[in-house]
Amino acid sequence: MLNNKNPYKTSISEYGEFGLINHLTQNFILNNPSTLQGIGDDAAVLDPKDKKILVSTDTLLENIHFNLAYTPLKHLGYKSVVAGLSDLVAMNAIPEQILISIAVSNRFPVEALEEIYTGINLACKHYAVDLVGGDTASSNLGLVINITTVGYAHKDEIVYRKGAKPNDLLVVSGDLGGAYFGLQVLERENSVFKVNPNLQPDLSGYTYILERQLKPEARTEIKSLLKEMDVHPTSMIDISDGLASEIIHLSQQSKVGFSIYEDKIPMDNQVITTAEEFGINPITGVLNGGEDYEILFTIPIEDHDKIKHNPNFTIIGHATEYVENVLITQGNAQRIPLNAQGWNAHFSKSN
Amino acid sequence: MLNNKNPYKTSISEYGEFGLINHLTQNFILNNPSTLQGIGDDAAVLDPKDKKILVSTDTLLENIHFNLAYTPLKHLGYKSVVAGLSDLVAMNAIPEQILISIAVSNRFPVEALEEIYTGINLACKHYAVDLVGGDTASSNLGLVINITTVGYAHKDEIVYRKGAKPNDLLVVSGDLGGAYFGLQVLERENSVFKVNPNLQPDLSGYTYILERQLKPEARTEIKSLLKEMDVHPTSMIDISDGLASEIIHLSQQSKVGFSIYEDKIPMDNQVITTAEEFGINPITGVLNGGEDYEILFTIPIEDHDKIKHNPNFTIIGHATEYVENVLITQGNAQRIPLNAQGWNAHFSKSN
Repeated sequence: MLNNKNPYKTSISEYGEFGLINHLTQNFILNNPSTLQGIGDDAAVLDPKDKKILVSTDTLLENIHFNLAYTPLKHLGYKSVVAGLSDLVAMNAIPEQILISIAVSNRFPVEALEEIYTGINLACKHYAVDLVGGDTASSNLGLVINITTVGYAHKDEIVYRKGAKPNDLLVVSGDLGGAYFGLQVLERENSVFKVNPNLQPDLSGYTYILERQLKPEARTEIKSLLKEMDVHPTSMIDISDGLASEIIHLSQQSKVGFSIYEDKIPMDNQVITTAEEFGINPITGVLNGGEDYEILFTIPIEDHDKIKHNPNFTIIGHATEYVENVLITQGNAQRIPLNAQGWNAHFSKSN
Repeated sequence: MLNNKNPYKTSISEYGEFGLINHLTQNFILNNPSTLQGIGDDAAVLDPKDKKILVSTDTLLENIHFNLAYTPLKHLGYKSVVAGLSDLVAMNAIPEQILISIAVSNRFPVEALEEIYTGINLACKHYAVDLVGGDTASSNLGLVINITTVGYAHKDEIVYRKGAKPNDLLVVSGDLGGAYFGLQVLERENSVFKVNPNLQPDLSGYTYILERQLKPEARTEIKSLLKEMDVHPTSMIDISDGLASEIIHLSQQSKVGFSIYEDKIPMDNQVITTAEEFGINPITGVLNGGEDYEILFTIPIEDHDKIKHNPNFTIIGHATEYVENVLITQGNAQRIPLNAQGWNAHFSKSN
């Protein structure tokens, strides 16, 4: 629907094993001194110097994590990298290498793969990471993208999910809910398009939330922002599966409770107006919708003054002694337990 | 067909995000001092000490890389790990961590996932590697397994594909073709079963080649075997896509030609008799069939005496000045150019 109809015509089978990955990665440049060997051998070789290594892996599946009807392939490549980098940002590490495995039907034309790799390359340049491995395999299963991200940090810089203490402040970067409500708009316009392919999608007035869904960014600058403020978080996680799920992760791993103030949660105005249009409580979208790729962390209460006026961050609550349920204070001052529906809802989409 | 019919009944949706991966990995033990943080955070944290890091990634797709009709799930888990480890063996590194991402339909019962993880755990114990990350996601695309392998080596221990020199000897570990002909037997019996489900598969007399297909091993001992012999290979690759494809990789990356002697290629007697039964030239299976997970490497000709009587290794040819085609000398002394059909044939299976 939003995709340009390019003249896709080159069959993947025109390239042999050596040809395809070389063709797709020929414009990629390796920049990081930690990259000793990139694509082209049995494994990448990396030099950590005196740092620790951090590694994460993510799989993105067609019709589960993305819908090709309204996801431009270049954006999909870019977003796959962002999803990987965000995990390392959430450890307070600097990502420097990625490995990407893509499985596609061999009816998928080479030009479509090229678009995905163009998006991957854009992200590599933007975030100064090197593509050092991975492959492209045939599939009769649809499009599957796996990204492995490698990064580095000194031991005392790494922030885990498990360090929060009672009274710590709970802080979030940026604003939330955009990716979820952007997805609602895309799903709606796609439904309209299916019924009447002649109708043009009406996407005016949704620029910000569509960008949050289709071309999110990883908050790689947060490590240096925190360093400048002399703030060292006690726990940290990225918001990829919805705020509720992430708070519960910090709660369970740090063995603390949390008290959240609903009216402190930062949301763009477009999130609020779009939520209203769809008849959805915007907070529901923020708590259970995912893919914002913002960062959630706790800091000692003594650091309150260092962060309170920083426009990049918002304090949304605080840690308490451990209790089974995280409590959220709503506008009417009721404190109700928070449930993580994000992942289960996500999972049940797959029938 | 070969699977036990266990009472699979627990729905994946009975587990939440926290529950499922914890449940599946509860019996996994972390053993390596290089593992600082395993599963349970945004990324694994690893300590390379003074070594370089090696990272590789592999994706295994249902109906492309494996067929659930005759692949026991436990074996599939084990073999996925072997495929990952083999890449690091081929760099002369020691693998110490793996990350596994599995995508399954949510109609796949938890008990089936448990079997896969049991196989993964067996391999982790056997090879002393730690499972430190990954996830389980829903899919409407069939079963997809991605494995990322992390290992370590000192800089001067690492062997790339690109170091072979003219006159170097070409050496292979173990014997070849078993996995390919094991697959032929399984495919045949599966076809018979489809026509008449009451017929029991006849697998007697194929024990070795079936094991090579269903439960291959990674040659992790090769690094120390070579060290004991004081042999340092000049180039190295693992044989996962067929011998022809791997020799061409070494040729292209090292810029040398190779001359191979067909009658030197080590094959088990079961490979030869099964090839005869199927009316296939056994050498064709060795050159173009994959998944043997043996290691192919070059050594300086001066090291000939160190390796010639070692039962683990066979010299099958030597490097020459660079020529476009690798030449293979057949029994009748014709020297013909070698083509890599492994991967292309593999790819074209996916329509």
